Amino acid sequence: MSSNFGHTFRVSTFGESHGPAVGVIVDGCPPRLALDVADIQQDLDRRRPGQSRLVTQRKEADAVEILSGLFEGRTTGTAISMLVRNADQNPGAYDHLRDVYRPSHADFTYDAKYGFRDHRGGGRSSARETIGRVAAGAVARKLLEVVAGIEVLGWVSQIHDIEAAVDASTLTRDDVEAGPTRCPDPEAAAAMVSAIEQARSDGDSLGGVVTCVARNVPAGLGEPVFDKIDADLAKAMLSLPAAKGFEIGSGFAGTRLTGRQHNDAFMPPARPGGAPTTPTNHSGGVQGGISNGQPIVFRVAFKPTATIASPQDTVERDGTATVLAARGRHDPCVLPRAVPLVEAMTCLVIADHWLRQRTVDVLGRDGGDR
Amino acid sequence: MSSNFGHTFRVSTFGESHGPAVGVIVDGCPPRLALDVADIQQDLDRRRPGQSRLVTQRKEADAVEILSGLFEGRTTGTAISMLVRNADQNPGAYDHLRDVYRPSHADFTYDAKYGFRDHRGGGRSSARETIGRVAAGAVARKLLEVVAGIEVLGWVSQIHDIEAAVDASTLTRDDVEAGPTRCPDPEAAAAMVSAIEQARSDGDSLGGVVTCVARNVPAGLGEPVFDKIDADLAKAMLSLPAAKGFEIGSGFAGTRLTGRQHNDAFMPPARPGGAPTTPTNHSGGVQGGISNGQPIVFRVAFKPTATIASPQDTVERDGTATVLAARGRHDPCVLPRAVPLVEAMTCLVIADHWLRQRTVDVLGRDGGDR
Amino acid sequence: MSSNFGHTFRVSTFGESHGPAVGVIVDGCPPRLALDVADIQQDLDRRRPGQSRLVTQRKEADAVEILSGLFEGRTTGTAISMLVRNADQNPGAYDHLRDVYRPSHADFTYDAKYGFRDHRGGGRSSARETIGRVAAGAVARKLLEVVAGIEVLGWVSQIHDIEAAVDASTLTRDDVEAGPTRCPDPEAAAAMVSAIEQARSDGDSLGGVVTCVARNVPAGLGEPVFDKIDADLAKAMLSLPAAKGFEIGSGFAGTRLTGRQHNDAFMPPARPGGAPTTPTNHSGGVQGGISNGQPIVFRVAFKPTATIASPQDTVERDGTATVLAARGRHDPCVLPRAVPLVEAMTCLVIADHWLRQRTVDVLGRDGGDR
Amino acid sequence: MSSNFGHTFRVSTFGESHGPAVGVIVDGCPPRLALDVADIQQDLDRRRPGQSRLVTQRKEADAVEILSGLFEGRTTGTAISMLVRNADQNPGAYDHLRDVYRPSHADFTYDAKYGFRDHRGGGRSSARETIGRVAAGAVARKLLEVVAGIEVLGWVSQIHDIEAAVDASTLTRDDVEAGPTRCPDPEAAAAMVSAIEQARSDGDSLGGVVTCVARNVPAGLGEPVFDKIDADLAKAMLSLPAAKGFEIGSGFAGTRLTGRQHNDAFMPPARPGGAPTTPTNHSGGVQGGISNGQPIVFRVAFKPTATIASPQDTVERDGTATVLAARGRHDPCVLPRAVPLVEAMTCLVIADHWLRQRTVDVLGRDGGDR
Repeated sequence: MSSNFGHTFRVSTFGESHGPAVGVIVDGCPPRLALDVADIQQDLDRRRPGQSRLVTQRKEADAVEILSGLFEGRTTGTAISMLVRNADQNPGAYDHLRDVYRPSHADFTYDAKYGFRDHRGGGRSSARETIGRVAAGAVARKLLEVVAGIEVLGWVSQIHDIEAAVDASTLTRDDVEAGPTRCPDPEAAAAMVSAIEQARSDGDSLGGVVTCVARNVPAGLGEPVFDKIDADLAKAMLSLPAAKGFEIGSGFAGTRLTGRQHNDAFMPPARPGGAPTTPTNHSGGVQGGISNGQPIVFRVAFKPTATIASPQDTVERDGTATVLAARGRHDPCVLPRAVPLVEAMTCLVIADHWLRQRTVDVLGRDGGDR
Repeated sequence: MSSNFGHTFRVSTFGESHGPAVGVIVDGCPPRLALDVADIQQDLDRRRPGQSRLVTQRKEADAVEILSGLFEGRTTGTAISMLVRNADQNPGAYDHLRDVYRPSHADFTYDAKYGFRDHRGGGRSSARETIGRVAAGAVARKLLEVVAGIEVLGWVSQIHDIEAAVDASTLTRDDVEAGPTRCPDPEAAAAMVSAIEQARSDGDSLGGVVTCVARNVPAGLGEPVFDKIDADLAKAMLSLPAAKGFEIGSGFAGTRLTGRQHNDAFMPPARPGGAPTTPTNHSGGVQGGISNGQPIVFRVAFKPTATIASPQDTVERDGTATVLAARGRHDPCVLPRAVPLVEAMTCLVIADHWLRQRTVDVLGRDGGDR
Repeated sequence: MSSNFGHTFRVSTFGESHGPAVGVIVDGCPPRLALDVADIQQDLDRRRPGQSRLVTQRKEADAVEILSGLFEGRTTGTAISMLVRNADQNPGAYDHLRDVYRPSHADFTYDAKYGFRDHRGGGRSSARETIGRVAAGAVARKLLEVVAGIEVLGWVSQIHDIEAAVDASTLTRDDVEAGPTRCPDPEAAAAMVSAIEQARSDGDSLGGVVTCVARNVPAGLGEPVFDKIDADLAKAMLSLPAAKGFEIGSGFAGTRLTGRQHNDAFMPPARPGGAPTTPTNHSGGVQGGISNGQPIVFRVAFKPTATIASPQDTVERDGTATVLAARGRHDPCVLPRAVPLVEAMTCLVIADHWLRQRTVDVLGRDGGDR
Repeated sequence: MSSNFGHTFRVSTFGESHGPAVGVIVDGCPPRLALDVADIQQDLDRRRPGQSRLVTQRKEADAVEILSGLFEGRTTGTAISMLVRNADQNPGAYDHLRDVYRPSHADFTYDAKYGFRDHRGGGRSSARETIGRVAAGAVARKLLEVVAGIEVLGWVSQIHDIEAAVDASTLTRDDVEAGPTRCPDPEAAAAMVSAIEQARSDGDSLGGVVTCVARNVPAGLGEPVFDKIDADLAKAMLSLPAAKGFEIGSGFAGTRLTGRQHNDAFMPPARPGGAPTTPTNHSGGVQGGISNGQPIVFRVAFKPTATIASPQDTVERDGTATVLAARGRHDPCVLPRAVPLVEAMTCLVIADHWLRQRTVDVLGRDGGDR
């Protein structure tokens, strides 16, 4: 459903860029989880504008208020509602867009769908909608840590043609957060900073890739057929603004290997009764749509920001040709701020599947026979 | 839900590789659509084994029976159920797999999830499950043709390191079906045939890429936020066996363009009142998750077939190391047979969104005021 | 899903009795519907406490704020979020309930389910949760009026053993709203007022029945099998606090008629091409789960209010026996305030099915053949 | 969704009265449950025609085939598909109904909805659709017995104006199955037999009430707000053919009690740590939509069979008046055959909620803190 995501751990988001507020309802979080506003705010602070000179300078504190579902510092099991007021509203700043479609934005398609032009900063298609996702993802992250020690970690692995060299197996959050790019390869990160600043001064923008790993995911998460955990991750990632591609494990590069090269041999488990291990992980931690106990690793492609300061050919609502040059504050590159979005959606998908697996594990090996 | 797909045009599949039958229920198809068995069978024939020497020689007629939802050659609006009996059952052929996990298959993960080893050819994770999807996709395809003239066409664009040169704008189904590879570039196709035959004789296997285009999709299909049409396509594609990646429009390559290069400028519509056109289509026909009237174009990566004749290291259920060499009939390359699967899932996604859009378009430009 | 209702016109509610706020997200409302806060507030005012001396004197303005989904006085097609702050919070007033279960409330069952005792006025099980439903129902009501002239009207038809005599075919909202009981039979209404005041002074409470009619519902709404429109109404009504029964048309009394007496004969339509009419309406406007164009008429039983001032035997969380007497402000009879709840849920169900029918009506009588 | 029911334990049915087959897919049943065809067939035999002289003599063995989801006598965790062929097809027997609407059937409403007249015995609206529900319910029943010792037992408590006197607390299935009426009060049962035979010879039909009890349901099943367990039961029951009312616990009669009379006092648990008990059960085992550990007791009203041998006024598709008298074999009273339907739907609802509760119970009393 349009504004809903998840089957058992479910979120519903609402809100437009320049309306009164954005937010989310989280339904299906188990009761008695210790949770407070700081758990949510720290992830929101990682996505908000104005964190560094690399990203948009729109000033928003994005302070979250929890409206329901908490009692004496614990979740109650009922719907958790969270709200962030839009502080930096300046609808007048968008008046020049009332009748014009910004290229490669959702302006025309929303009008085609709804017969409606909410020209104020993209309305519902604005990246501010993702505030609700990040807030919900923070709840999922907390749940996954407590119940299973699952850790979800994303980073910028490519901006434009600059690729980072990263050892995913030893990477920590501190490595990622060490600089404003969220690229943990310092050399690449420095080049990325230069490239982003150059793009800004050129009135241009850059895209790139976020890589994400989920560690300690137990084997057995994911459903056969349609709700495969990698299929749900793919949907989650393509639902993010500006995302154009998703690949898991070997991905597109793996199509150039042969089966002998690509198959992940099984080795005996590290400890008796454990999951078998695989010396390679071309599967990306998922086989047949179900986690195999190895790290889940995937990559998400983000196009260059559509809003650029350079003049562009476009049309007005009535079809007449015009030229548009963006004004105001924009991100010349969204990649650093995309990291918490990718992590949030990953936490939502894994939390959902972790809970779903609880409904499978109800009969013992003997099928409950007595 | 695990075996269900779609919101308004919905399918539920069932069946295992070596059980009595596989099939599907289609719920939500509008009434009065002319439909007969031949509409379904022709797509099933494109996916079935034994079509050419390139694919597995398992002999299955895969003849479909329609059990409900049709009356006097028209859909009735109620659930359409379709059944294909598994003719070529030989469960004994799999006895040697009872206690061993095939590498890069779903054998271990299903056991981890369900505490159960259905060793007969992959059970529910077998590609035979896709029969139900193709049958349902054929219904969706018929609906899309009748209501909107929408055409969905896929082809093999890469096998291993052989890439085809194809002009997507003029391609026809006959071009694709001209040879056993479903690659419409004759030179590349010939190289692909050689590579597949070499892989077979090496006891190895190959992967590749299917590209798909949907033409005549009206602007306005797709939902904001989570049920973006490209997000649903991504999920649909990653739910296919062996799929490891999805990209739409410029995809991963687009991350290396700048915004000025990547943005699709709008041009005045070809006819008054029509949709504006874009001379480029880096967006792949989708902006903000909603179709913009341009062709929807995307690519799907399939890994090399996991079943290979060469011996591989693996483990038994109890964790002891062993070596496995596959026996019997396998596809050294699934790409040619993946084309109808990609098309079927595409038809299901677009039909679902086309019907959902009917619930948006209910008030006129004046909001129904009188 | 727990806090979600509806398939195409969908609502998600949140909030507890004594948390910061209650509210709702409405997803799936078509764009361009004229809507303002007053449309919502007028229905909220009909459910809020303190309307008359008959109902609880808890003081709450219940002023609604629309946070999203509106632009320049029209719906945008995206999620409509609405919020009501809880003004009259006094958590300390419930301290004596921290460890005790109120009889015939949800105190024990929530604790059994969640391992959690939110003792502040029922928490999520409080009737304040219905604020979100009424707000959403007001949006649905507006939609139904504009698109189809559908009118939904409920009234109190019985309190305790006092039954009203009402001609449902001529009844108007003004008749219902003429007095504080929402019973349009003045004689019965006077007796009901006396009975409620007597119950209050006795420290006791009363139940009763709300009857509801939906007029101008076109034939064809409702889905076969599970999502019958009467099945969805039954679920909607039983989901209301204190509801214990639902019957449509002849209901339980109809079990005492024979088929000859009970069948609704068809008569030729009033105008050529219209729906056939039925001189009787034992079906209650629904046949085979689908509306037949006659008024939809049903009744909902509400038990006497569980909160009473008299002392009652009960237990504490640890199982020890105790005696409880309620304090504070309660409704000795919820029936007058239940009327807008029944109407709201009815509007939600009908709006959902009206929109769903738009996905059925897409091929003409010829099945789209050309 | 139209042909789907349930959130976690899900069923999808298909099939028309006179098409090739009817059936069901069950999705979400946990793996390793011992199950065989006999478990299903015994419930189907209780609903099939021709069991006694009281019910229709249509001859159908209704032999079920399990097509998927079983392996070596155990469920696999994947979708269970079950099929029953329609043996007694005689479409020609319905030719006289091609253009006429049977009163109080779904003939007109299906035509209004779908623009389609499947005149063969009701098509999708036929009671044969319930075969799939009964087959699915038998799986749910087996699951509930194994995991929790839950027992679901229904009986005929009223036919026309004959009411049975039954002690629900001691009743057994053998008591119910002792006679063809499924009324366990022998005196009332004898009167019911006479009344049904009289109705048949009069060309008339009778309705009545089925009462159902679910025993050993643990406290805590059901979700707040919309998916209350009694709301889901109400929907389940109203989705059955000919159902017109549902009441739980005290139901409509409870509206004539006062709060002091109606409230179920809590008493200390029978054993330390157990659920508190209630000497009365006006709540019907459900408080705030969640089970409280007492027996769940509810009643379902079924109208008199719409098909009667007497001539009735009706109209043709074009609106012209006509007179119709039914031919062939009908049930003058469906109540005895409705019992397994009510039980099946009850098992489906409880199994669904039992599984959903598994996703709530994941953190200990300490919220998983370590």
